[in-house]
Amino acid sequence: MGNRFDLRCEGCGYSLPKEKLMGLASSSSCPSCDRALLNAQYDLRGDRFLDWKSQLLHRKGSLWRYWELLPITAWETVVTFGEGWTPLIPLPKFGRSIGLENLYFKDERQGPTATFKDRQATVAISYLKEQGINRIVLASTGNVAIAYSAYAARGGIQVYAFFPAGVASAKIKEASLYGAKVMAVEGTYDEAKAAAARFASDQGFFLDQGIKTFAGVESMKTMGFEIAEQLGWRSPDWYVQGVSGGMGPVGVAKGFKELKTLGLVDKIPALGLIQSAGCAPIANSFHRRETQVSTVASPDTSIATLATGNPGLAYNLLKQHLDRDGGDCAIVTDAEAWEMVQTLATTEGILVEPATAVTFAGVVKLAQQGMIQPQETVVINCSGREKDVHSLSF
Amino acid sequence: MGNRFDLRCEGCGYSLPKEKLMGLASSSSCPSCDRALLNAQYDLRGDRFLDWKSQLLHRKGSLWRYWELLPITAWETVVTFGEGWTPLIPLPKFGRSIGLENLYFKDERQGPTATFKDRQATVAISYLKEQGINRIVLASTGNVAIAYSAYAARGGIQVYAFFPAGVASAKIKEASLYGAKVMAVEGTYDEAKAAAARFASDQGFFLDQGIKTFAGVESMKTMGFEIAEQLGWRSPDWYVQGVSGGMGPVGVAKGFKELKTLGLVDKIPALGLIQSAGCAPIANSFHRRETQVSTVASPDTSIATLATGNPGLAYNLLKQHLDRDGGDCAIVTDAEAWEMVQTLATTEGILVEPATAVTFAGVVKLAQQGMIQPQETVVINCSGREKDVHSLSF
Ligand SMILES: Cc1ncc(COP(=O)(O)O)c(C=O)c1O
Ligand SMILES: Cc1ncc(COP(=O)(O)O)c(C=O)c1O
Ligand SMILES: [Zn+2]
Ligand SMILES: [Zn+2]
Repeated sequence: MGNRFDLRCEGCGYSLPKEKLMGLASSSSCPSCDRALLNAQYDLRGDRFLDWKSQLLHRKGSLWRYWELLPITAWETVVTFGEGWTPLIPLPKFGRSIGLENLYFKDERQGPTATFKDRQATVAISYLKEQGINRIVLASTGNVAIAYSAYAARGGIQVYAFFPAGVASAKIKEASLYGAKVMAVEGTYDEAKAAAARFASDQGFFLDQGIKTFAGVESMKTMGFEIAEQLGWRSPDWYVQGVSGGMGPVGVAKGFKELKTLGLVDKIPALGLIQSAGCAPIANSFHRRETQVSTVASPDTSIATLATGNPGLAYNLLKQHLDRDGGDCAIVTDAEAWEMVQTLATTEGILVEPATAVTFAGVVKLAQQGMIQPQETVVINCSGREKDVHSLSF
Repeated sequence: MGNRFDLRCEGCGYSLPKEKLMGLASSSSCPSCDRALLNAQYDLRGDRFLDWKSQLLHRKGSLWRYWELLPITAWETVVTFGEGWTPLIPLPKFGRSIGLENLYFKDERQGPTATFKDRQATVAISYLKEQGINRIVLASTGNVAIAYSAYAARGGIQVYAFFPAGVASAKIKEASLYGAKVMAVEGTYDEAKAAAARFASDQGFFLDQGIKTFAGVESMKTMGFEIAEQLGWRSPDWYVQGVSGGMGPVGVAKGFKELKTLGLVDKIPALGLIQSAGCAPIANSFHRRETQVSTVASPDTSIATLATGNPGLAYNLLKQHLDRDGGDCAIVTDAEAWEMVQTLATTEGILVEPATAVTFAGVVKLAQQGMIQPQETVVINCSGREKDVHSLSF
């Protein structure tokens, strides 16, 4: 394979020596300036990618088709369920009903554990295996824990998962069915993260820190790569997602940036960042044009998946993106989300967890506000099957 | 598109005039001899398929890549979620533990509603739309109803689904969330089928009759096509599935037969047909070398998905296949299945519904009996996520 990538700070230019990768994998805040995240950077020049498009034709339908741009150096330790390369599906009926002519959803439900967090799990768990790490601690609102636990079981790694209050018990149960040790924390997601960090540090175990663990962001690029390839090597005008910690849109944007550098697409899409009314630090701060995020101490929403009260540096990265390449935020109430779950199921045959209904409802708002134009190409991240259908009352 | 296919009886040679297709779509028992099923037959000679393998390289990752061999003539009415082209995933750890060196699973969980019945739904619902039919009645042990209901919602067709006793309430609920009208029948699957038939006939609505509705069998061929293509245009030695009505293996075998006629593979795999101890009419009849199936009047199993007591003509088709191209049946107890659910989750990160755990447990038995040889290539149909994780007690 022989991948070559560096971890570099976009803030101060610091570059991490390769030997230190392992220790630092647990946190990629820059050790020099502490104000930015370390970013994996690849050599995108030269002849390497000249023939890439036609090489891709012969590769498997999995995100590993893009291995040259993933931070893994050994095939033998890759833990995979053939994830990625999910269908990009037109939504003409729903699109027409809200005045959008080129609306698509990327059906991430059609993955090993049914969310785009499978991408994160395959790259992160493979990276850990490559590094010889066999225990991982994380905090999760559900889907990350489920994805990591499934991949960890296959890879022979032990997961310790900390959940905040409000996570559906079916999700905690699913993670534990894969063999994860699960801990329910009576508190917010930020408190669960703190508990996970204490536990990892006490035990000397590896701590996954979401967006700060660079394998995660790298994995999310593949959604961008796939969307571009599926549209015939073209960028959509919008990528829209329900946002909690922000890893998805940060990664997708990085993916398009790399494709643009390679000359494979000619622009980076605008980002539609949708948040839940009870926990909308990114959307509210962006609408107020704040340079630092105003955090939400006590999220007040039934949609636990989106309950990151303190997105930290992700806000800065996302704001930078919105200011430069376009995009906007929208806020959706829980009631609007639950109603959208029903609309999608009965009119399009798509059953999703409410965090994704938030995204669809947000698209409706951005279209109504004229932010998204009728003929623009819009791709919605559609993740998560409802785990507890009995909780739905329609 | 311009597909050309005929419906022909393999028993007496009767061939159905094209104009009668629609009426007969509701039952493809031969109207002339009534002893066999009508079979879709395609023109496999001539130059049409000469270049097929390389054309496929440029097609989407969906079962519709094989449209020349599917019984649809109009693209405009195809109802699709990009189903099919699911990953074929090696199982080295589990394989080694049971002495098999080339064990794979076809991960049908990674589909729109998470079972291989999505294939049936996309072809059948598209066929109905093409024919202008907008109401469909069916009986189902759960997964067919869920798949049809999702596709029907997207296609604007009304589903009436009849369920036997014992189907998990989460499955009935999911079908109804897509807008299906659901009817719980206090009786066996065969009784639910009878109730559905009466209702359809009273109302004059279209009745889906499972294996007798030829679109279903046709759809299942695509699993065979995909497996062959994914193995580099090679047949596995075994295709193994948990069997209820038998549509899956009948269709997969037909798919390999067509590929063999086209010269794309050189053999038809043996079939491993696994049934649940409380409802094993096919396995028991086959082991007793019976020429007609001995039906099970009152299935006694917690695994409702596999509770077809009377498989009818499917038995004859499957026995013919086993006698000619090889294969065997195995019988698995409910306790063995539930234990296998746990083993797969904790050792491989694969969470399945018990009907699929039956299949894996059956493979273990066939391997232990020496029916499956250590070096043979074996593909397991892996369908169905557990809908109610709280029912699992490990
Ligand atoms: C279904 C779903 N949507 C959205 C998100 C938010 O992800 P991000 O980290 O990109 O904010 C998650 C996170 O787990 C999720 O599972
Ligand atoms: C998960 C699963 N396995 C096996 C079967 C049996 O299918 P067949 O019709 O091929 O016997 C079904 C049928 O619904 C199913 O849903
Ligand atoms: Zn720095
Ligand atoms: Zn006949």
